[in-house]
Amino acid sequence: MYRTHTCGELRLQNVNESVILSGWVQRIRKMGGMTFVDLRDRFGITQLVFDQEKNPKLFEKANRLGREWVIQCQGIVAERSNKNLHLNTGEIEIIAAELSILNESKIPPFTIEDDTDGGDDLRMEYRYIDLRRNTVRKNLELRHLIALEVRKYLSEHNFLEVETPVLIKSTPEGARDFVVPSRMNPGEFYALPQSPQLYKQLLMVAGFDRYFQIVKCFRDEDLRADRQPEFTQIDCEMSFVMQDDVLDLFEGMMIHLFKTIHHIDIHDFPRMTYADAMRLYGSDKPDLRFGMPFVELKEVVSGHQFSVFDSAEYVGGICATGCSSYTRKQIDELTEFVKRPQLGAKGLVYIKYEPDGSFKSSIDKFYNANDLETIAEEVQAKPGDLILILADEKKKAQKVLSELRLEMGTRLGLRKKDVFAPLWVVDFPLFEWDEETQRYYAMHHAFTSPKPEDIVLLSTDPGQVRANAYDMVINGVELGGGSIRIHNSELQHKIFQIMGFSEEEAQFKFGFLMDAFKYGAPPHGGLAFGLDRVVSLFAGLDSIRDCIAFPKNNAGRDMMSGAPSPIETNQLTELSLKLIDSK
Amino acid sequence: MYRTHTCGELRLQNVNESVILSGWVQRIRKMGGMTFVDLRDRFGITQLVFDQEKNPKLFEKANRLGREWVIQCQGIVAERSNKNLHLNTGEIEIIAAELSILNESKIPPFTIEDDTDGGDDLRMEYRYIDLRRNTVRKNLELRHLIALEVRKYLSEHNFLEVETPVLIKSTPEGARDFVVPSRMNPGEFYALPQSPQLYKQLLMVAGFDRYFQIVKCFRDEDLRADRQPEFTQIDCEMSFVMQDDVLDLFEGMMIHLFKTIHHIDIHDFPRMTYADAMRLYGSDKPDLRFGMPFVELKEVVSGHQFSVFDSAEYVGGICATGCSSYTRKQIDELTEFVKRPQLGAKGLVYIKYEPDGSFKSSIDKFYNANDLETIAEEVQAKPGDLILILADEKKKAQKVLSELRLEMGTRLGLRKKDVFAPLWVVDFPLFEWDEETQRYYAMHHAFTSPKPEDIVLLSTDPGQVRANAYDMVINGVELGGGSIRIHNSELQHKIFQIMGFSEEEAQFKFGFLMDAFKYGAPPHGGLAFGLDRVVSLFAGLDSIRDCIAFPKNNAGRDMMSGAPSPIETNQLTELSLKLIDSK
Repeated sequence: MYRTHTCGELRLQNVNESVILSGWVQRIRKMGGMTFVDLRDRFGITQLVFDQEKNPKLFEKANRLGREWVIQCQGIVAERSNKNLHLNTGEIEIIAAELSILNESKIPPFTIEDDTDGGDDLRMEYRYIDLRRNTVRKNLELRHLIALEVRKYLSEHNFLEVETPVLIKSTPEGARDFVVPSRMNPGEFYALPQSPQLYKQLLMVAGFDRYFQIVKCFRDEDLRADRQPEFTQIDCEMSFVMQDDVLDLFEGMMIHLFKTIHHIDIHDFPRMTYADAMRLYGSDKPDLRFGMPFVELKEVVSGHQFSVFDSAEYVGGICATGCSSYTRKQIDELTEFVKRPQLGAKGLVYIKYEPDGSFKSSIDKFYNANDLETIAEEVQAKPGDLILILADEKKKAQKVLSELRLEMGTRLGLRKKDVFAPLWVVDFPLFEWDEETQRYYAMHHAFTSPKPEDIVLLSTDPGQVRANAYDMVINGVELGGGSIRIHNSELQHKIFQIMGFSEEEAQFKFGFLMDAFKYGAPPHGGLAFGLDRVVSLFAGLDSIRDCIAFPKNNAGRDMMSGAPSPIETNQLTELSLKLIDSK
Repeated sequence: MYRTHTCGELRLQNVNESVILSGWVQRIRKMGGMTFVDLRDRFGITQLVFDQEKNPKLFEKANRLGREWVIQCQGIVAERSNKNLHLNTGEIEIIAAELSILNESKIPPFTIEDDTDGGDDLRMEYRYIDLRRNTVRKNLELRHLIALEVRKYLSEHNFLEVETPVLIKSTPEGARDFVVPSRMNPGEFYALPQSPQLYKQLLMVAGFDRYFQIVKCFRDEDLRADRQPEFTQIDCEMSFVMQDDVLDLFEGMMIHLFKTIHHIDIHDFPRMTYADAMRLYGSDKPDLRFGMPFVELKEVVSGHQFSVFDSAEYVGGICATGCSSYTRKQIDELTEFVKRPQLGAKGLVYIKYEPDGSFKSSIDKFYNANDLETIAEEVQAKPGDLILILADEKKKAQKVLSELRLEMGTRLGLRKKDVFAPLWVVDFPLFEWDEETQRYYAMHHAFTSPKPEDIVLLSTDPGQVRANAYDMVINGVELGGGSIRIHNSELQHKIFQIMGFSEEEAQFKFGFLMDAFKYGAPPHGGLAFGLDRVVSLFAGLDSIRDCIAFPKNNAGRDMMSGAPSPIETNQLTELSLKLIDSK
């Protein structure tokens, strides 16, 4: 037997018991004739004591141990004189009687501490050592717990978890597919799913009524910090539901998660239209941990010979409470912030509403105190506040103002990691127009249903059609989204037409779904959450990478195993493939 | 609102309630001035009644409905005069007041009944219709339930579910990998995992202590009825364990499953060595629902001038209780059975131990009644029994006799689907010698540890080394298997040497695992269950295909979507690949 207890288990009540522990040497301290070893496993740390006087041979053996060696130790539990109340096991120690070295260890390339001295690349290369750190392991424990609670909640609500295939048909719409050559069918390829969308809709046609799956999905896109080639979705679909049924049920799921994981009651799940979200926050995923909504000022500010405002499509402002004391330097920082190449604003207008009721602004030449007071009233500023105004083409101004709002929220400490502001954004546009390819693309996906009252617009003004689509947003992060689907094959064909698909294309890409819809498709809808994002939110992480056991870097490479890697020529030949010389 | 209740929910206590149901038209019966519609959803069937006299317009509308149309019906719950006690809802019916057609349906290509008239190919092409059948859906409900209970059991035993990557490094050992070209790394490929073996061992090195994952795995092998290119494993690994710890824990998991799923108590999990399993049943996965062990007869039967026995390496017999009455025709069938090309026996010897104590046999020429009685005693036959004897090269004879034993078990009705005989087979050989490539292959896999007492044999007689490897077998099906792993990199190198890997090969294939083992690898071991097989066993299915939502056929093709399929040339070019002309 390797152990009688884990390293996180022993307490005062175990004093005098003979125990066996196994684990890793976290730390060795030598004090006089005593050697103390902190023995670590996933469950905790227990102190082992080796006494030179009582057992000189064992003492000597202990002194030869190194960091991260794997050992087994038998001994008697004793009360510590010098208790460490930060540790669950800090009231006891083990007076060692026997010691076995199960495995030695080279000196690890970085320290196994919450704040390690290892850089990102080194941590990824030695991920198996990085994962020994509490902070990293806790994210994965949280991930396990969240997945478990999701499954519990959904199962209790009559959802069935059904595994859909990973080797599927390639449908070149949306992001780029990863493909898998088929040896048995030369020249043909499977695709890895970007989502189980078609299969979950087929399960609704099959009468499964409520489906979910926690499932890996794949996108061959150029990677950013917050993207991985493989990611995990909580994928769900329901039959015989209206939009509110879906929203209520998954809001319930999130409430359940906050309750069981964080012991927080979240009740308030406001629903905001996409139009309002854009108008008030310039974003379809506004962070509602704080207010600071946009106020459109075009009308109020026009006609003062200030050409920047007069000529702009859009003038909008936000009010930063209590920031009238901002210095020239701070204002300059904000101006630099909005002028960064990624945002590209031409400038930033400020109005300081001084505590004494006077105004100082960068537009004093054009606006007198009365004018500025009118603007202040419009944005509901009070003495002591700072008003920030941007003017530009509308879409761009909203985007920049949205970033500026978030920056001010951060500066004001209004974006706390332990505060959660959930939100449904609803009524998304059905289509987006793409200038480059001169066609409409589905904003959510091709199977999203239009709002019934907007169906008349399909023929006249598709860009104005709103969809039965919704996103769940918490703290400015889009955790998931979905829609009520089209279950009528005529309407579906109409949508394909608007997207510029020929009959043949539609048949080739989605034919089996269209066929299925002819055999009694029920009304249905659903959504998918990004599990990585949900875990990151709950763990307070900035990147999804930290909640994935073995993530890939921005070049899609696993730094530990070296994947991807060349394969042997005969493997390629078996697949009827050869490499194109890249010279 | 589409429905107030499901079609499986209403009972006598709901009588007089106004309800709304939605579902599929299972059946329409017209009797006089009444039309009865069986409305079906996942939860059950409810009868709707349309009365010509009371509501002629609605009656007419109902008469236009077709099979599998999706409808919504509002009405009042009423007690049925003609109750159907086979249905949960059979005591009530709905007196229809309103009817909406949500979707029409073409006439389905086969009937949605437990015994459908659809052939396998048609069912696979229209899988979304096939899945509407109770029998198919129930398998998937069972699958959901089993996965849920596995997760519950393992979580309660401190296992963490950790997702390992799907895009991994190709390691050309074992079965053939599916590969995925990397666009971002031209000429390089990911592989899809045949199992998360390396990653789960790395998680042990990372101190995760207890890991599991219900995970898709992939093998690009030529397919048989019971194989799919993608399949699902319950993959597990534990640290600081001996073999018995692993066996106890997973036997506990199976006991939990039988208890919660089938409400059966299974206590008896005997452990049998591989050597005994081969000796007694000629198989490493014996079906222990019945006895009928092999008896080695070489010694007893030798020296009677019967050259078939005298010259054979192995002579073995089984005793079929109560089969002395077998006719000539039945004996001939058994002889044909063992002579089939797949088995290839040269013949079958029988001895009938007649109820009156006399003998009739196919070897009367060589053996007198006394001789036959000695044989009968050896195989513990009693009057009324039939003794069947095979003689051949040992391995072959055991294989054929094993099949014959199963055939007799089936004929005797001893292989009941609701009887479960679990078993651990232990002490597998570490290596198998391959004549063709003239090298040893790991029987389980390259990371399996030898039994400590056999380590000395590694240098002298590797073929005799037994492994700390084990298989769980129930009813002759290998549900899962695993081993205690090597955690010492020197021993691991020794094993690689025996398998004929050069230092470079080993480093290229498994370098990152070998590296990891230098940083404090704990003793560890684990196993993996085939979820598809577990579900099949619990569902009493003959093929795993019936418990997979969207299986592929023997050519690896999804008959519904048509995957795999050709992709566009520019997709290939992006991947730096081109097709080899196959002509």
